[in-house]
Amino acid sequence: MSEAVREALRGQRIETPSWAYANSGTRFKVFAQAGVPRTPEEKLADAAVVHRLTGVAPTVALHIPWDRVDDYGKLAGYARDLGIRIGAINSNVFQDDDYKLGSVTNPDPAVRRKATDHLLECVDVMDATGSRDLKLWFSDGTNYPGQDDIRARQDRLAEALGEVYRRLGPDQRMLLEYKLFEPAFYTTDVPDWGTAYAHCVELGPKATVCIDTGHHAPGTNIEFIVAFLLRAGRLGAFDFNSRFYADDDLMVGAADPFQLFRIMHEIVAAGALGAEAGIAFMLDQCHNIEPKIPAIIRSVLNVQEATAKALLVDAKALADAQRAGDVLGANAVLMDAFATDVRPLLAELRAEQGLDPDPLAAYRASGYAEKIVAERVGGEQAGWGA
Amino acid sequence: MSEAVREALRGQRIETPSWAYANSGTRFKVFAQAGVPRTPEEKLADAAVVHRLTGVAPTVALHIPWDRVDDYGKLAGYARDLGIRIGAINSNVFQDDDYKLGSVTNPDPAVRRKATDHLLECVDVMDATGSRDLKLWFSDGTNYPGQDDIRARQDRLAEALGEVYRRLGPDQRMLLEYKLFEPAFYTTDVPDWGTAYAHCVELGPKATVCIDTGHHAPGTNIEFIVAFLLRAGRLGAFDFNSRFYADDDLMVGAADPFQLFRIMHEIVAAGALGAEAGIAFMLDQCHNIEPKIPAIIRSVLNVQEATAKALLVDAKALADAQRAGDVLGANAVLMDAFATDVRPLLAELRAEQGLDPDPLAAYRASGYAEKIVAERVGGEQAGWGA
Amino acid sequence: MSEAVREALRGQRIETPSWAYANSGTRFKVFAQAGVPRTPEEKLADAAVVHRLTGVAPTVALHIPWDRVDDYGKLAGYARDLGIRIGAINSNVFQDDDYKLGSVTNPDPAVRRKATDHLLECVDVMDATGSRDLKLWFSDGTNYPGQDDIRARQDRLAEALGEVYRRLGPDQRMLLEYKLFEPAFYTTDVPDWGTAYAHCVELGPKATVCIDTGHHAPGTNIEFIVAFLLRAGRLGAFDFNSRFYADDDLMVGAADPFQLFRIMHEIVAAGALGAEAGIAFMLDQCHNIEPKIPAIIRSVLNVQEATAKALLVDAKALADAQRAGDVLGANAVLMDAFATDVRPLLAELRAEQGLDPDPLAAYRASGYAEKIVAERVGGEQAGWGA
Amino acid sequence: MSEAVREALRGQRIETPSWAYANSGTRFKVFAQAGVPRTPEEKLADAAVVHRLTGVAPTVALHIPWDRVDDYGKLAGYARDLGIRIGAINSNVFQDDDYKLGSVTNPDPAVRRKATDHLLECVDVMDATGSRDLKLWFSDGTNYPGQDDIRARQDRLAEALGEVYRRLGPDQRMLLEYKLFEPAFYTTDVPDWGTAYAHCVELGPKATVCIDTGHHAPGTNIEFIVAFLLRAGRLGAFDFNSRFYADDDLMVGAADPFQLFRIMHEIVAAGALGAEAGIAFMLDQCHNIEPKIPAIIRSVLNVQEATAKALLVDAKALADAQRAGDVLGANAVLMDAFATDVRPLLAELRAEQGLDPDPLAAYRASGYAEKIVAERVGGEQAGWGA
Repeated sequence: MSEAVREALRGQRIETPSWAYANSGTRFKVFAQAGVPRTPEEKLADAAVVHRLTGVAPTVALHIPWDRVDDYGKLAGYARDLGIRIGAINSNVFQDDDYKLGSVTNPDPAVRRKATDHLLECVDVMDATGSRDLKLWFSDGTNYPGQDDIRARQDRLAEALGEVYRRLGPDQRMLLEYKLFEPAFYTTDVPDWGTAYAHCVELGPKATVCIDTGHHAPGTNIEFIVAFLLRAGRLGAFDFNSRFYADDDLMVGAADPFQLFRIMHEIVAAGALGAEAGIAFMLDQCHNIEPKIPAIIRSVLNVQEATAKALLVDAKALADAQRAGDVLGANAVLMDAFATDVRPLLAELRAEQGLDPDPLAAYRASGYAEKIVAERVGGEQAGWGA
Repeated sequence: MSEAVREALRGQRIETPSWAYANSGTRFKVFAQAGVPRTPEEKLADAAVVHRLTGVAPTVALHIPWDRVDDYGKLAGYARDLGIRIGAINSNVFQDDDYKLGSVTNPDPAVRRKATDHLLECVDVMDATGSRDLKLWFSDGTNYPGQDDIRARQDRLAEALGEVYRRLGPDQRMLLEYKLFEPAFYTTDVPDWGTAYAHCVELGPKATVCIDTGHHAPGTNIEFIVAFLLRAGRLGAFDFNSRFYADDDLMVGAADPFQLFRIMHEIVAAGALGAEAGIAFMLDQCHNIEPKIPAIIRSVLNVQEATAKALLVDAKALADAQRAGDVLGANAVLMDAFATDVRPLLAELRAEQGLDPDPLAAYRASGYAEKIVAERVGGEQAGWGA
Repeated sequence: MSEAVREALRGQRIETPSWAYANSGTRFKVFAQAGVPRTPEEKLADAAVVHRLTGVAPTVALHIPWDRVDDYGKLAGYARDLGIRIGAINSNVFQDDDYKLGSVTNPDPAVRRKATDHLLECVDVMDATGSRDLKLWFSDGTNYPGQDDIRARQDRLAEALGEVYRRLGPDQRMLLEYKLFEPAFYTTDVPDWGTAYAHCVELGPKATVCIDTGHHAPGTNIEFIVAFLLRAGRLGAFDFNSRFYADDDLMVGAADPFQLFRIMHEIVAAGALGAEAGIAFMLDQCHNIEPKIPAIIRSVLNVQEATAKALLVDAKALADAQRAGDVLGANAVLMDAFATDVRPLLAELRAEQGLDPDPLAAYRASGYAEKIVAERVGGEQAGWGA
Repeated sequence: MSEAVREALRGQRIETPSWAYANSGTRFKVFAQAGVPRTPEEKLADAAVVHRLTGVAPTVALHIPWDRVDDYGKLAGYARDLGIRIGAINSNVFQDDDYKLGSVTNPDPAVRRKATDHLLECVDVMDATGSRDLKLWFSDGTNYPGQDDIRARQDRLAEALGEVYRRLGPDQRMLLEYKLFEPAFYTTDVPDWGTAYAHCVELGPKATVCIDTGHHAPGTNIEFIVAFLLRAGRLGAFDFNSRFYADDDLMVGAADPFQLFRIMHEIVAAGALGAEAGIAFMLDQCHNIEPKIPAIIRSVLNVQEATAKALLVDAKALADAQRAGDVLGANAVLMDAFATDVRPLLAELRAEQGLDPDPLAAYRASGYAEKIVAERVGGEQAGWGA
């Protein structure tokens, strides 16, 4: 592994989401786990453990109102004390009874006002926490043909986005996320990257697209979207996770590690891995049945491994084969990198940085899991609904 | 419309599910509705209204433990007093904390025992209510490759099914439902009709397959499965609903009315519409955002309309065109029936039976919606988790 | 049916594609049919029959080089003599050996030059025939990860599109078509509406998107795309057909007539049905096993019927219910129109215009099918490869 | 790598298909390649090269009539002289004009007779070549709802299969392949494993299912089917290839190497890798744009690598973690094996057997590609239609 590869890996940053430390589930059942955080502070504490063990996860995304506190500045300070920082602020306009027929696209102007106000409040939180990114995901849509006017909803969406965009400070950005379906089952108001992209272009340079790797129709080539948005300068962030079917929210790299590698290959090939490229590499996962902290550690490692493989692609050989129209040769260059076992190299790199080469083993040995089970008794465990 | 068609429509029976009268939602939010039942008895009352207005929905499926009562015989009597009957008994082995890694396929024998005991308890409920059908849906599966042994889980499944099968009385049946995914996201232990069919054949003649129209992979031809199972004598029931994406559980006929017609065409063509064919035509839907009772009425009407169209297919002309290899001619016979507006005919039929020709208008005029909103105050509204 | 509805239906125009009159098939087999055209002139003759019988199909799309002739002006005159006109010009840069690795996105600049020159030649054909629309579909893409550089291919695409765009005359337009996959199986260079839209915006106002209804990932909501592009002023045309699986190219309305209705509802609701809206309603189908001319007539009728139903939607009632958040009510307004049997009304309209009320019966009675079988002997039947 | 693993890898056998050495393409275009075989004998010669270089591909599947010769015994002898053997016999009842509406399920009994006779002829070829397996894939199906009777087609299918089954010799088997769609676009008569399985059970022990890895609906869990059929004793063969969308027929392992590994894990876990288990591991691919022989070598290597990784799974640790309900631990056992770079080990194994450690480099160095380009001039290159 060349020094440039090592340097790139040392500089990689992955953001973990506060809600992944909390309980989650399906519409059928949320299986509660012992030791799960009860407060935003406890979520930060868990995230700090992940960062301490992996060395590459220094920021935590918040979800408002799941992580609502009285004093966000104080929360940010608490994070700093733990050695981490607050990352993106995620708005939540889907869990209030008012939002049954939509939030910013609701036919009722009063509901739209309420929803937009919440988005503006999230910018306040950004101001207080020093967050750069406002991540917007709208569950808005309809369940039945005719239920609402598709174009009118786009107008309402554009209006709300515009208002929020204008509120952003000079160093703040908007990340617009799209999703094919769920919880809406007929139309979704931002269903695909094209819709998100078109709104971002209309809004201005501070608006970029967030790709959640589980939010596509079957058969969608995600790395194509990555490459297209990179070329257009509109890729702002990833919500990493993996899926076999729909928005399964499994650990990233668990379902299709080769796809994750192909995505990271596009990132590396475009020189977009480093912080200066401004792309936020975030996890967005649900650990419904597996213990949360080790699952998140594992996810971080999976992203690291895919990145390491992508960095090993022989760019010169690849370009030569591509230019020559050598289909098998070009493919072989990519596959050679993917077939490489990068775990020893990453272990070595960790050791150099004073980390345990095996973060999962270190976590198991740390006693942290037992500690939080013992300590976090009483109160209400955080969850999607909390 | 010939008298035979009228007769067939008069004899049609559609079963409504007790849980469709209760609150439901997605993993993101359950939007509660006013007036929703708080008890099994109130669900029956609502179902009785649907039957009174449509004339074709005389039975209600129960879900245990959602509809758990002390005295099932008494509940059955209450239903009879309302002019309806208890239909299929649906087991629920997916909402207990023990079932996190599966119920009858759980690696832990104690959990398997508990789950199987619940299934046996459901047969007790059948004995008490006079139900013919035990409907089994298992959420069992795994989320991650390697999590459990696929074949071992089939062995455990076969064992549990066998024990329950042997417990069935002479006039009782087992309906085995399959589902592609959700809540399990890697493997599901009964993911497709082939798996359900193979187990049913192994079990014996009282085991048949239940087709939930929302439980298939994209692109699956459901009417093919209907036809195949009819030919094999193993179609036991439908769980009707409709979907654009995954298991959306929308009102049947709302997403693809032509598909519903094609399904009913296979039923009619095989002479399997009448009660003597033994196929249970059930709804299984979630009315997340629309009012529940009128949504169920609408669903019943949708099935009726699809059936009426299927009955209008000119079977002789169809067979002639098929035999002659007349692709366009055969297709046209089917499309002619589908293009027919059968609403006037169904309205006429209702009037003949002393029903309001427009059940939805009759419901709105009845004041029932207002009544239950006023009366059902306090207590806890029934829902999937209740 | 109000006079406005009648007027709209009288003014509707549907374009048929020259290649649908020719032989087609799958990669497994092309089943030749007797009487199939051998020349562009014979295709026009067949198209004229479809127009004569339906009254709404006055234009024919050409495919170059499948319809290459020495004198396009003369061909246009021949069409006029038959009572029809030349419609869109479709380029074909996928059947030359040089295009194995792409046409305008090929890594080899010489191949790109050749492909772009062909596109420019198509504009010459437009000049000669008076065609307004240049329809561009690119089969370009890759089969294997790594085979070529995704972003570089976009650059090449943008360059070729720009050159062709600048060549367009003041009254000429570019229709950019997208397709998920096939014949490329890993990446496709214009895989979705977002990609086509982004290029169109970059190009200028004469570039618009063409929606082929069979070119989407499973689960894609096509009417959403229709509505979005209408709102953005970038919907240029449809290639109508239907599909159960992939790009099946079946008769439009055959697989999901309700979807076709929903698409036409968006068109009607946006006031985009008339010629002044500039949207080309074209068929693009393969009649692999059914006789071609009656299949095309049937397809035209299917579009007419869907349009008639869309025109019957009570726009006022729909908007009221939508504004009130009445989910079931709004849906019912749409379903009422869909459930209506519009065939008698269309038959009446045809009779008023001096047409046979039943175009398919009129075709069968005309003896045309027998005539072309008898006359078109010898020569080579036109097909996709001819 | 333990000696048991080495032994298993030494014993692995992969069958290559004669048609993969010939030209293929999509419905849009077949790109001819220089040096492609013109005769069955030349296909065998190419296959012998693949075996010589890889050491694990000693058999070649034939496709009748693509590989029709006067004297099959002589062809088998020719193969033996080349150091290989004839493998499965693939019937082809989809390329004759008579089969437009189906072969064994055609509404016309004369066509059914012709098709069944062809299948019987294939058994004659098996007798002459010493082949064990008759592979049956039927393109039969319909394109339009109503076109034919779904159940009647199953009756016809069962009848033809029965007649062919009874013709099989004591050591001969029938492999029944299923496919979701293409070339039929509405119904396919054997669309899924359930249908194939049910017919096999009806036929008897010599009938087993063939899994083509590209023949499933999106989201289908193929390794589940593998495991289920292994448990039921009905898995007869694989047609390996890979796909991103539909039946893309790309090189196996090219689209989702992790899926291939999971499939091989089920095989290894069930002890079904060795010859005594009777499972035929065949390739069925189309090398539309890449050179054929190296693509096939690459495919063989991909299967080998996936197998090696599957053999490295720590079965004891996996079972322990599964039994303990350790989701992350069990998954990690699998992922550890997948992450291992097995290429050095396979290279070592090849060297031990006197093979070049790098079969692709050896092929390039051999001059064979240049030789066949120079020699195979004139005549007609073999292809799907030849």
